[in-house]
Amino acid sequence: MTDEVENVETEEQAEVDELEALKRERDELVDTAQRVQAEFDNFRRRTARDRQELVSLANERLVKELLPVLDDLTRALQAAEKHEEAKLEEGVKLVHRQLAQILEKEGLAEIETEGVFDPHVHEALLAQPSEAEPGSVIEVLQKGYRLGDRVLRPARVIVAE
Amino acid sequence: MTDEVENVETEEQAEVDELEALKRERDELVDTAQRVQAEFDNFRRRTARDRQELVSLANERLVKELLPVLDDLTRALQAAEKHEEAKLEEGVKLVHRQLAQILEKEGLAEIETEGVFDPHVHEALLAQPSEAEPGSVIEVLQKGYRLGDRVLRPARVIVAE
Repeated sequence: MTDEVENVETEEQAEVDELEALKRERDELVDTAQRVQAEFDNFRRRTARDRQELVSLANERLVKELLPVLDDLTRALQAAEKHEEAKLEEGVKLVHRQLAQILEKEGLAEIETEGVFDPHVHEALLAQPSEAEPGSVIEVLQKGYRLGDRVLRPARVIVAE
Repeated sequence: MTDEVENVETEEQAEVDELEALKRERDELVDTAQRVQAEFDNFRRRTARDRQELVSLANERLVKELLPVLDDLTRALQAAEKHEEAKLEEGVKLVHRQLAQILEKEGLAEIETEGVFDPHVHEALLAQPSEAEPGSVIEVLQKGYRLGDRVLRPARVIVAE
């Protein structure tokens, strides 16, 4: 063989090798892409199922905490039926404290109503003549609440004219 | 050029073309794999954030429904302080009905205690001599509840010896 023929053969061999290597790389990439896609699809399906479960579980926990409140209300009701006034009053106090504590633990907080009317957290139902600073809250008709940083219900108030 | 040389050149050209095509394919696959992976990562991050929000929202809805219960309990408490017994009793009935309805809407249901003791839904606190069928429930000390198909709290009962 002449050197030239040898060179051509070596070059050809190199090209064939590169071709083979590329084909392998391509096949591996196709595999990887399919695997990642399949994992993604699985994850998406699992997520949808998880969401359902998560909502049920979140509510389940809160519902479970409310059972003693329901129990004590039932007991207060029985005391009322038997006209055991002291027991009834004690029961109502207990239930009120229980429910307030449960909701507080959930992040519920009363909206402040001291001072100036704030349209973000107050709802003015009435304006009345008053000796107080005009525009200040003079009476709370219904307490307002926030949960975390969200206003769950504005405080319904009367403001000074 | 001889035919042979021409053939070799055509073959070489074909190989170069195939190599080029494979390289393009490989590059596109790398792009696709990277894109799918990035989408997957984003989805995963978004999902974690969504879960937090979902739990808060699920609880927020229930907490919001409980606000009127808290209001009416506060009113009942005020009636108790003023010794307005009729109003207090009325208030307790109202609150009890409200809370029971809210929890029922969440899927809460009382566990049946009629008939034979069922260890899946009942908890026997005592066994007492009785004229009833041995092993039957003769008294309920604390009501049991299920939420959907899950036992939230077994009914605590006394069974006949």
